[in-house]
Amino acid sequence: MAAAAAATEESLRKALAEKQSAVDNQGNAVRTLKANAASKPEIDAAIEALNRLKLEKAEIEKKLQYCIGNGGADGSINKEAFRQHVVNTLERRLFYIPSFKIYRGVAGLYDYGPPGCAVKSNVLAFWRQHFVLEENMLEVDCPCVTPEVVLKASGHVDKFTDLMVKEEKTGLCYRADHLLKDFCNEKLQKDLSITADKAAELKHVLATLDDLSAEELGAKIKEYGITAPDTKNPLSDPYPFNLMFQTSIGPSGLSPGYMRPETAQGIFVNFKDLYYYNGNKLPFAAAQIGQAFRNEISPRQGLLRVREFTLAEIEHFVDPEDKSHPKYSEVAGLEFLMFPREEQMSGQSAKRIRLGDAVSRGTVNNETLGYFIGRVYLFLTHLGIDKDRLRFRQHLANEMAHYAADCWDAEIECSYGWIECVGIADRSAYDLRAHTEKSGVSLVAAEKFSEPKEVEKLVITPVKKELGLAFKGDQKKVVEALEAMNEKEALDMKASLESIGEVEFYVCTLGKNVAIKKNMVTISKEKKKEHQRVFTPSVIEPSFGIGRIIYCLFEHSFYMRPSKAGNEQLNVFRFPPLVAPIKCTVFPLIQKQQYEETAKYISKSLTAAGISHKIDITGTSIGKRYARTDELGVPFAITVDEENFVTIRERDSKDQVRVRVDEAASVVKDLSEGHKTWEKVWSEFPHHIPPSSADED
Amino acid sequence: MAAAAAATEESLRKALAEKQSAVDNQGNAVRTLKANAASKPEIDAAIEALNRLKLEKAEIEKKLQYCIGNGGADGSINKEAFRQHVVNTLERRLFYIPSFKIYRGVAGLYDYGPPGCAVKSNVLAFWRQHFVLEENMLEVDCPCVTPEVVLKASGHVDKFTDLMVKEEKTGLCYRADHLLKDFCNEKLQKDLSITADKAAELKHVLATLDDLSAEELGAKIKEYGITAPDTKNPLSDPYPFNLMFQTSIGPSGLSPGYMRPETAQGIFVNFKDLYYYNGNKLPFAAAQIGQAFRNEISPRQGLLRVREFTLAEIEHFVDPEDKSHPKYSEVAGLEFLMFPREEQMSGQSAKRIRLGDAVSRGTVNNETLGYFIGRVYLFLTHLGIDKDRLRFRQHLANEMAHYAADCWDAEIECSYGWIECVGIADRSAYDLRAHTEKSGVSLVAAEKFSEPKEVEKLVITPVKKELGLAFKGDQKKVVEALEAMNEKEALDMKASLESIGEVEFYVCTLGKNVAIKKNMVTISKEKKKEHQRVFTPSVIEPSFGIGRIIYCLFEHSFYMRPSKAGNEQLNVFRFPPLVAPIKCTVFPLIQKQQYEETAKYISKSLTAAGISHKIDITGTSIGKRYARTDELGVPFAITVDEENFVTIRERDSKDQVRVRVDEAASVVKDLSEGHKTWEKVWSEFPHHIPPSSADED
Repeated sequence: MAAAAAATEESLRKALAEKQSAVDNQGNAVRTLKANAASKPEIDAAIEALNRLKLEKAEIEKKLQYCIGNGGADGSINKEAFRQHVVNTLERRLFYIPSFKIYRGVAGLYDYGPPGCAVKSNVLAFWRQHFVLEENMLEVDCPCVTPEVVLKASGHVDKFTDLMVKEEKTGLCYRADHLLKDFCNEKLQKDLSITADKAAELKHVLATLDDLSAEELGAKIKEYGITAPDTKNPLSDPYPFNLMFQTSIGPSGLSPGYMRPETAQGIFVNFKDLYYYNGNKLPFAAAQIGQAFRNEISPRQGLLRVREFTLAEIEHFVDPEDKSHPKYSEVAGLEFLMFPREEQMSGQSAKRIRLGDAVSRGTVNNETLGYFIGRVYLFLTHLGIDKDRLRFRQHLANEMAHYAADCWDAEIECSYGWIECVGIADRSAYDLRAHTEKSGVSLVAAEKFSEPKEVEKLVITPVKKELGLAFKGDQKKVVEALEAMNEKEALDMKASLESIGEVEFYVCTLGKNVAIKKNMVTISKEKKKEHQRVFTPSVIEPSFGIGRIIYCLFEHSFYMRPSKAGNEQLNVFRFPPLVAPIKCTVFPLIQKQQYEETAKYISKSLTAAGISHKIDITGTSIGKRYARTDELGVPFAITVDEENFVTIRERDSKDQVRVRVDEAASVVKDLSEGHKTWEKVWSEFPHHIPPSSADED
Repeated sequence: MAAAAAATEESLRKALAEKQSAVDNQGNAVRTLKANAASKPEIDAAIEALNRLKLEKAEIEKKLQYCIGNGGADGSINKEAFRQHVVNTLERRLFYIPSFKIYRGVAGLYDYGPPGCAVKSNVLAFWRQHFVLEENMLEVDCPCVTPEVVLKASGHVDKFTDLMVKEEKTGLCYRADHLLKDFCNEKLQKDLSITADKAAELKHVLATLDDLSAEELGAKIKEYGITAPDTKNPLSDPYPFNLMFQTSIGPSGLSPGYMRPETAQGIFVNFKDLYYYNGNKLPFAAAQIGQAFRNEISPRQGLLRVREFTLAEIEHFVDPEDKSHPKYSEVAGLEFLMFPREEQMSGQSAKRIRLGDAVSRGTVNNETLGYFIGRVYLFLTHLGIDKDRLRFRQHLANEMAHYAADCWDAEIECSYGWIECVGIADRSAYDLRAHTEKSGVSLVAAEKFSEPKEVEKLVITPVKKELGLAFKGDQKKVVEALEAMNEKEALDMKASLESIGEVEFYVCTLGKNVAIKKNMVTISKEKKKEHQRVFTPSVIEPSFGIGRIIYCLFEHSFYMRPSKAGNEQLNVFRFPPLVAPIKCTVFPLIQKQQYEETAKYISKSLTAAGISHKIDITGTSIGKRYARTDELGVPFAITVDEENFVTIRERDSKDQVRVRVDEAASVVKDLSEGHKTWEKVWSEFPHHIPPSSADED
């Protein structure tokens, strides 16, 4: 679909350019006729032709406008209106509040208000149930304040940066890639006059934005004449800005620290203790839920790109030689949208693939990675994420860190486009090795053999004396390169030395070939008895951006329906009971003491059953009260309209059943905790048809 | 008891001083005899008398040592051994891990390892159930990163400090009061030679430590010659150090921010929205659970004084003219240890008081404050805090902020003494007023009258022209002072002006009296119709230090019992199922496939029922496996020893019952969720008497 739209856009741009030159030509023709004082009919005919051409041009412009604005790249016009409506509802009902609002707020910081906070705590409780409890993970809870040495080892102190440009006059800062992106998008969407070639160029810039170096970004900004958005003043060259919030631990000023940018490092540094806690056995997973911080240069995308957010991360430690998973078969049969590397490279779109096939074909690197992809799919769809707007996208080779074995993002489509909400990466042994090196504490696992094994080991022994004579100051680098050979390289060299006596050998640290002779190195295979195999475990890391998941959930759950009178549109969040901020409301139909007492009795029973609910004894019409709670996503409403029976209403169908007062709380408990579906309740209890005046005004 | 111990200590110090001078005198006597070449029998007799005196002195020293070290002030010797044992167990079983241990850690930062993290999440879940859900509180979730303006308004930027001294040579920093405290305690406990007067002085310093100014602290440190503990180098004068972690928001460096020192401010700044969300009605409570930060100068007291911790705070907003609470009667009958101000001042100890009496006598300021004291008592004892080691201590007048109406701390006794774990304060309107002033946004509530009320209002109208003539440049300050008079002052002035025509009036901003004449101000009472009363709500704030509660819970739950063989002491945590990190273990008695399959079947049923558990199929002896999980506080163990039946063992009684395999999970679920007590289960199922070899080795 996207490819088709792109083709249309291109042909429309070409047609527009042709029509423009036709208009220009005809305009010249008219002017010539006038200058030459041609006859009136002749001039009128030329003008009529000109007008016809202008109309045709306008028609093409309209089509192009529609194509790039709506049917095209990201359908931004309708999506923005939808988002505005959702966000207004969320802020009006206090799902979110811009933090420190009375002080005019701080960009990129939001509070969860009461219903938002309840949704968040439901999502986290389900995450604990679905991952920690079901998988017997070792949950830990580490501080946010982190000393520099830890984040130096992890690479964050050196590499956790974005490229920034500064407007020198005012000191305002911008993300360099964002300015370039905005410029390109603006041109593509609003400037109908650009040529198809120019459009292609801009699209190429957008596609390769993440790969541009500081120099390349700076050159493009200069080339396009991009200035500061607010003041139009010139900008500095792009330079890296570290995104961690920095602080100082203790009063001396001598211990720099940072607010952690992720929770994972707290797990890695505890590997040794956790491995011991698990009886020195692999595989096992540790998990952590907590705040993480990112001092964004200029946060945009509202609730999606914030400076403080809740992460839930899993680090599953596994033997690199055995990445099978005992429960893999439970998810292998799932089928959902996947977007492998090859499909992305060849311009195709995501497609429904059976997870088991993706693993067996090698598209997904290993069973454990596949298992977590499946579990993440179940987690998200259970929360209420639309499965048709959820895809698993594999990282392209250039997106992945050099050490990663494979990486998939769970992306959810919302009004901002496809948003990365969960990253599932096989990070190999990188993190444990980095901390082993920096701390000097060996973070390894061991497989004990049931009986000692005789193993053949490759032994490479450089003869330093000969190498020193031959290579002088380069000797050390040659020795290191020889020792770093893998088995195949070493055995090839051995064969060549034995047959030819000399071999060309590339030393990458020298950047050239050297000649290795037979007397310079001995290569042999030796047999040894070993009692165990010691290795650095691989880690498979599913990392959940909880705030992003919740925001997408809000968009996927939101819909509007006409009020009964048909004169207004009412907002509804179709949250499943699992995530709904409140499970149930209790309404006396009218203000009457008896009804209020019954309502309070039911409220007490619900509290005892641990069901969050709200009692509303205002005299507002029942229709208004329903509408108010539909907008909070409350799935069930109990209305008291007589002594012995109440009605229970389901939010989306608006259907109602009649239930005995003393049963009401337990029916809602069953519905809320998923022991019963509404369909089951609907089949068991008498239906209630409200008089037309009593519902939905 | 403490008073008796103090009396003993004093008399012992006196006796010791007397005996010392007797020893000195006798020593002199011996020397004189020798110098005068007295007869040998005479000298021997004198030496014998000297030795007798020395023995007597040693005897008194031993008693004094015992008194101050064990039976005295804080019984520190046994308590420290107990604490060491508990802390060792907690760290060995990964309840806690010193954060970033492989990098030699950071003082004041700890991780919760798997069982600790589970306990914490159980405590927080119960907190949500007990407070948020049962009281319909509005829970919010605000960021930790906070802009300076908010904490300037709250007073933290200016006043959230500790006094610090620095050793100039090395730059090492210490808390000034801690050094003085250590010095006094050390002297009192180890230096047996100090006089009773000196001991009394040191004790007075300890008692008034919190009230000392920087100058007074500095003078004491000089007087006692206190130097840096590690190097013995001299120290700087004490100066204030702000305890907030500072950072910078955004890339410009122009927006200072802090990591919040408490969660409360996030609620106060949202008051207006939350009040609206609650239908513009009082009272209501908002709540927040989250991380808070305190950059301690040099953290001590291990797990109790840390640099990052979880707070759970409630802000209950109430009409200052009506602090009653609708559910107060539910807690009024509770009776527990309270320690009112008067009892503290008169040297008495805490005593059991009925909460209702404390409120009706006015010891506790109001019903709402009393209600929360009662709810906190229920919360803590439900978790497993020993009710005999829990007291509610009222703040002394000099401990409370000037604006506070009343303040009580829930203090829990542990090996460190009585530790403040929950503060329950009536902060009156202070916080909302402070943010109203700083932000310019009016944080008030209104009581709408059912019909307009006629009210008499005091009107003070300074006559600016006359005041200007009389006071020139001081006119503005005089006007402000006149307008700021309260009702009584104004009416007094009115009466004086009417009778005498002139009155002396103190203007504090000028620092002097001025003469106010009759023509300079009119004061009258006017009748007005008002439709509502607008006021700043009072706030009652229960604030929970979750980490401290958990640590005290660990100490209160810990006990040791001999192993069956009697050759070692086994550790047990007697957590109630509510807080136990894991509710149940599943053990096949021996390694046998059939047993393992049954164990896995039960494990699946437990997972489905949402009961956290651990399956252990190692071949370790059953007694060892029981001991291992007793030390984690796991309350129930299911042991599979035949096909159709299993045994369920309770941790503390070690009693076992026999239960059908398919019932096991539901019995443990009922026990874990409090639907059934162990006594009930014990009465319903056949008892199992294990063969002596199969249990507790």
